[in-house]
Amino acid sequence: MTGSSDKGKSYGVTPQSQDFNDWYNEVVVKADLADYSPVKGAMVVKPYGSALWERIVRWLDDKFKETGHESLMFPTLIPMNFIAREADHVEGFAPELFTVSKIGTDVLDEPYVMRPTSETIIGHMWSGWLNSYRDLPFLHYQWGAVFRAELRTKLFLRTSEFYWHEGHTAHVDEQEARAEVMQMLGIYHEFCRDVLALPVVRGEKTASERFAGAVATYSIEGMMRDGKALQSGTSHYLGQNFSRAFGVKFQSRDQKEEFAHTTSWAISSRIIGALIMTHGDDRGLMMPPNIAPTQVVVIPVGRKDNFAQMVEEGEKLAAELRAAGVRVKVDRRDGVTNGFKYNDWELKGVPVRIELGPRDLEQGVVVVKNRTSEDKETLARADAVNGMTERLNGIQAALLKRATDFMLENTVTVDTYEDFKAAIDAGKWVRAFHCGDPESEKAIKEETKATIRNEPLDGTEFFAEREEGVCVHTGKPSGYGKRVIFGRQY
Amino acid sequence: MTGSSDKGKSYGVTPQSQDFNDWYNEVVVKADLADYSPVKGAMVVKPYGSALWERIVRWLDDKFKETGHESLMFPTLIPMNFIAREADHVEGFAPELFTVSKIGTDVLDEPYVMRPTSETIIGHMWSGWLNSYRDLPFLHYQWGAVFRAELRTKLFLRTSEFYWHEGHTAHVDEQEARAEVMQMLGIYHEFCRDVLALPVVRGEKTASERFAGAVATYSIEGMMRDGKALQSGTSHYLGQNFSRAFGVKFQSRDQKEEFAHTTSWAISSRIIGALIMTHGDDRGLMMPPNIAPTQVVVIPVGRKDNFAQMVEEGEKLAAELRAAGVRVKVDRRDGVTNGFKYNDWELKGVPVRIELGPRDLEQGVVVVKNRTSEDKETLARADAVNGMTERLNGIQAALLKRATDFMLENTVTVDTYEDFKAAIDAGKWVRAFHCGDPESEKAIKEETKATIRNEPLDGTEFFAEREEGVCVHTGKPSGYGKRVIFGRQY
Repeated sequence: MTGSSDKGKSYGVTPQSQDFNDWYNEVVVKADLADYSPVKGAMVVKPYGSALWERIVRWLDDKFKETGHESLMFPTLIPMNFIAREADHVEGFAPELFTVSKIGTDVLDEPYVMRPTSETIIGHMWSGWLNSYRDLPFLHYQWGAVFRAELRTKLFLRTSEFYWHEGHTAHVDEQEARAEVMQMLGIYHEFCRDVLALPVVRGEKTASERFAGAVATYSIEGMMRDGKALQSGTSHYLGQNFSRAFGVKFQSRDQKEEFAHTTSWAISSRIIGALIMTHGDDRGLMMPPNIAPTQVVVIPVGRKDNFAQMVEEGEKLAAELRAAGVRVKVDRRDGVTNGFKYNDWELKGVPVRIELGPRDLEQGVVVVKNRTSEDKETLARADAVNGMTERLNGIQAALLKRATDFMLENTVTVDTYEDFKAAIDAGKWVRAFHCGDPESEKAIKEETKATIRNEPLDGTEFFAEREEGVCVHTGKPSGYGKRVIFGRQY
Repeated sequence: MTGSSDKGKSYGVTPQSQDFNDWYNEVVVKADLADYSPVKGAMVVKPYGSALWERIVRWLDDKFKETGHESLMFPTLIPMNFIAREADHVEGFAPELFTVSKIGTDVLDEPYVMRPTSETIIGHMWSGWLNSYRDLPFLHYQWGAVFRAELRTKLFLRTSEFYWHEGHTAHVDEQEARAEVMQMLGIYHEFCRDVLALPVVRGEKTASERFAGAVATYSIEGMMRDGKALQSGTSHYLGQNFSRAFGVKFQSRDQKEEFAHTTSWAISSRIIGALIMTHGDDRGLMMPPNIAPTQVVVIPVGRKDNFAQMVEEGEKLAAELRAAGVRVKVDRRDGVTNGFKYNDWELKGVPVRIELGPRDLEQGVVVVKNRTSEDKETLARADAVNGMTERLNGIQAALLKRATDFMLENTVTVDTYEDFKAAIDAGKWVRAFHCGDPESEKAIKEETKATIRNEPLDGTEFFAEREEGVCVHTGKPSGYGKRVIFGRQY
């Protein structure tokens, strides 16, 4: 996979409507988000992708701290025997593990694995730190890289090394632990909706889709523009499975020895894949203003003899916008056509472009174009500056609406297996009753490649109505008291 | 090393003046900065240590961005053959490498190593990205973990996994690259002085102490309270060594193919060790206010019947301080003596403690104690709030002065090898002439355990006078045109 590079980079991408897969692969590299690496399955995150990830990290990190969580840093390596101690956990992760068996010239008796997730080593440490119910809750998280072998690389979506936070909490009882699981799912939902403009369906995964070692797994699921689902974040109630395996116990208020109830939760760099695949169009990315590293780009439009002056004027305009709290860049590149620049910034999805030419300058106007619109507007310079925050908010709202409409339009309610298969083949999500039998889920997956994304949570905004009916596949009574969401997935 | 824990944790530590090593090991664990892990040589960074590291990251990251650098994320794994491609590099790092030879059940033909540093894989990627002189400079950095086997763990100072940023830049010529090396060394110096209150000596390392593969290595060196030196940051000019090894070449302005001149620079989580060992005293840490996660702790001093009320009053006071831009916590713990709390926060090195009792409340006063002083002051509440920033600045300055005085008092200028050995044995730094012969350096190290820390840079504030003389060891003429700094090191 080596050799993909900026060399001879040409702008313009395969239109999304023509080949979604090619569009994605091209746009990620050409927008300078990421590149392939010489390490099988691993990516290099380039400056634009890294700036995006840093903004994601910042928002979530602030929220974790606001809700009383503390960051820690645990080792990247985990003794192999730790992974083996929780039976479902090792079964789930063994095929994906990176094994370290030599340090310097020493061959290790007991190999280490590079963490696929850290429940085990955190459980081990907690067992040393926990004494009394007064020590709880532990509200911990860490940012870092994790490692799970992938057969086929897809930048951001499937990489053998990816970036995430993993939250790990321990509580005195089930009720408090489950409240934490729901709190974090709610924060993920809020983050997706308000920052990334991603409508997501909050719900519980079925037993066969649970995290390896969990009692209950909840997810947020988003619909990409090809109709496939992307699981964009998870929050797990782990019961006492890991605390029993690692001796995470405490003396309770009434002097009994009890095992803690634990949770874990994560959003990873995959979410950048969701962002790209939800908002893009044929010309490239569309960055929601609330996350965009650059919200406005100013393009000085000059000729040879006045280009330097227009750049200077562009910087002045940028300074005014910056003072108004806008993240802005000036495209100072010389020797590149305006058309090339327009395409480049559209590919990168910058929400607003301002063109500033000598005649505009004389007349005190600028030309403004939203990434979400085909139309250019000519505005008084002061209006463009003063109205920019409102404009950006408008683009943010438009992107959320566009994605929500798309998800709703491409989700169909069916009651027969014929209709089910037809809808899945047409790239839709399907709302249907299911009996809850894992064997039936497996058969449906084999026949249609569709899985149950989740069972939407009561009281949430999408697809959550309680309803009774019979299973679309087996004809048995519904196992969930409502329709569940089926779809093909990334 | 497992089992060190909060369980049965007792406060109070071995006095620094009694056993510096025991003091350090105890204070790190008891202040909740870090703990030992079940992974050989690796630590767990606990919430207080992580909060400190986050503040370090934030300051440096902002500065890197201000100076035009961009963050990227490169893979943790590096193909083994990359490390081998630069001869000095592999010789330097081979004994410390973690080798990954299995992924899932696949045994790898070509193993990967966990990065000890990333010059090689970044060089490889750059070779794909670089085309013309117009693409340069590359001003890149990444935050992350690196892996180098350590025989004996010492939390923060010697861990087999540690945290850092590594800056990597590529330039059209030597002059620009060397300017970058000096710029970053200057930023490190500024960070140490202004944020961490660490006086450091900026200088060039001798050939035998250079980074594996560098043309020139510069360091900042600080003196710990036991008189030993700690290399606290490095900045390297790599010449064209790595660009030749990885084909990092470009077409120059005059159409020739040239290899880039590259640099790299880093500060790691070791710096937390420097912070601890520079500012502490017998009672524990002393956090410089500019980096302290908590600058002020409010201790409500009440009895059973009014404790809840005093906590509430404490929160009010904290809110006023917070509004004045101060990072403040209220110690709400019940069932713990005031004395225990005072010791606890002194151990953690929080710069200012405020005690608030019912009588104080009535009289509109609070009792204030600086960590750096033995005296308590009774102040009008409004004065305590309004004067807090100035107070914190005063503590910051006092810590820098204390550390600077200590370094100057414990650095001696000698001209004979007898005096040299006596001073080193007394735990001092020594300013002496040296001929520059690596064999002599080696002999001195074997005899005295002292090495040349660096050759102070012209024009910097410590020990930089130009001067001629004869080598303290060989009697040959000085090789540096000035005295160099010798010391034992961490």
